Amino acid sequence: MHTTVSSLESAAPQIGDLLARGLNVISSCEELIYPWKAAPEISAELDARARAAGLSVLGTGVNPGYLMDFLPTALTAVCREVRKVTVLRYQDARFRRLPFQQKIGAGLTPEEFARKRKEGALGHVGLTESIHLIAARLGWSVDTVEESVEPLLAQRQVSSDQIRVRPGEVAGLRQLGIGRVDGEERIRLEFRASLGEEDVQDTVLIDGIPSLRFTIPAGIHGDLATCALLTNAVPVVVAAAPGLRTMADMPPVSWFSG
Amino acid sequence: MHTTVSSLESAAPQIGDLLARGLNVISSCEELIYPWKAAPEISAELDARARAAGLSVLGTGVNPGYLMDFLPTALTAVCREVRKVTVLRYQDARFRRLPFQQKIGAGLTPEEFARKRKEGALGHVGLTESIHLIAARLGWSVDTVEESVEPLLAQRQVSSDQIRVRPGEVAGLRQLGIGRVDGEERIRLEFRASLGEEDVQDTVLIDGIPSLRFTIPAGIHGDLATCALLTNAVPVVVAAAPGLRTMADMPPVSWFSG
Repeated sequence: MHTTVSSLESAAPQIGDLLARGLNVISSCEELIYPWKAAPEISAELDARARAAGLSVLGTGVNPGYLMDFLPTALTAVCREVRKVTVLRYQDARFRRLPFQQKIGAGLTPEEFARKRKEGALGHVGLTESIHLIAARLGWSVDTVEESVEPLLAQRQVSSDQIRVRPGEVAGLRQLGIGRVDGEERIRLEFRASLGEEDVQDTVLIDGIPSLRFTIPAGIHGDLATCALLTNAVPVVVAAAPGLRTMADMPPVSWFSG
Repeated sequence: MHTTVSSLESAAPQIGDLLARGLNVISSCEELIYPWKAAPEISAELDARARAAGLSVLGTGVNPGYLMDFLPTALTAVCREVRKVTVLRYQDARFRRLPFQQKIGAGLTPEEFARKRKEGALGHVGLTESIHLIAARLGWSVDTVEESVEPLLAQRQVSSDQIRVRPGEVAGLRQLGIGRVDGEERIRLEFRASLGEEDVQDTVLIDGIPSLRFTIPAGIHGDLATCALLTNAVPVVVAAAPGLRTMADMPPVSWFSG
């Protein structure tokens, strides 16, 4: 179980060490969800090392890893045609751990938000990986992936246990990931998290035959769900074919009575 | 692609023939969704023949095969604890094919319904298999599975293109499957289909940590989705480990651009 860093470049040597010790690896490293597109060489090397050792490596978590990639992919199974996949994840960050609240910029002024964003210190890591995972399974050759982030400003005072946000300060952020195929928008992932967010939901929209809307009205709590996923993945990863796996190319993870 | 019968006993020799010809098999046979519990010997034999031939056999369809078994199983991945799984599938049968409308008793008098039910000619096949599939993946040892069927009587006249139902006649049915573990109800599948059903939905309720509600407000159209699933399963079944597979022990089926 590997839960140290978001960056694949930092995670890869650590994962290599675990493989060398004869261990299957389940990691919460966001860039490992679907690393083949952004880091084909590191991916091929990890895959080769895992295969040679007869072990499996999986990156997972609730997001990326499940809600905005695995789930929409599995939901397309009932469709005869898919034109576009949209996922909305809107969360009230008051109930998330402090590092998450900081990651979305809660309590900053708009100026601080802009500066920290430039430094790369804000925002969710993984929309691009989620887009590549969906595209790979659906057989779409994505030519561009765009990510954008904007602050959501508080209209009224709102507080979590740790952070107080005054009107006009940043309550959180809206992050958009768009994958285009032949110039056309085919995958749209909208991640919104703020203190006091009212429209909480996890929703998948499939535009196709048929078009479908799937929703989890209260949303899924990220911290708890990521821990559950990492644990629940154990028997599936142990039984999986050796190599660098993704959530969509091994049997579905489920809770199991221990 | 095998789409002839619901009964595993009739399907097994046909599937055996297909394996003998060197073909992977995807079947809509309802009892093949999870046959290990009801027919362990036939299952073991099919599994052995498929392994020996290096081929895979899968039973699938929207229900059983996806909505009331695969999907709830995959949704438990985000839970740290699961106490009970409930699935509701409520459909308006006016938009389903005629054999489906007949299968739910639309247009019969309550007396005809009771007689045909006794003859085994009415109702959805697969709730028991769905319960066994969920239980197997969640590690629950189900001691009893009960299925019950009751007619839903029309309050007012309602018609499909093929059948007219007068008030007091049967508009459809409600079928309940309950799986108990140590005497306690842990899996509850409610299948409701009638001409003019107003509360159309596909909903999964998980009682656990966290408890979750997941819903497809407009429901999934069964005939179209089953065809899509059978087709979309092809690349996954071809790539799957040889043997008798279930939807929950191979990578998730998804639509793919052809």
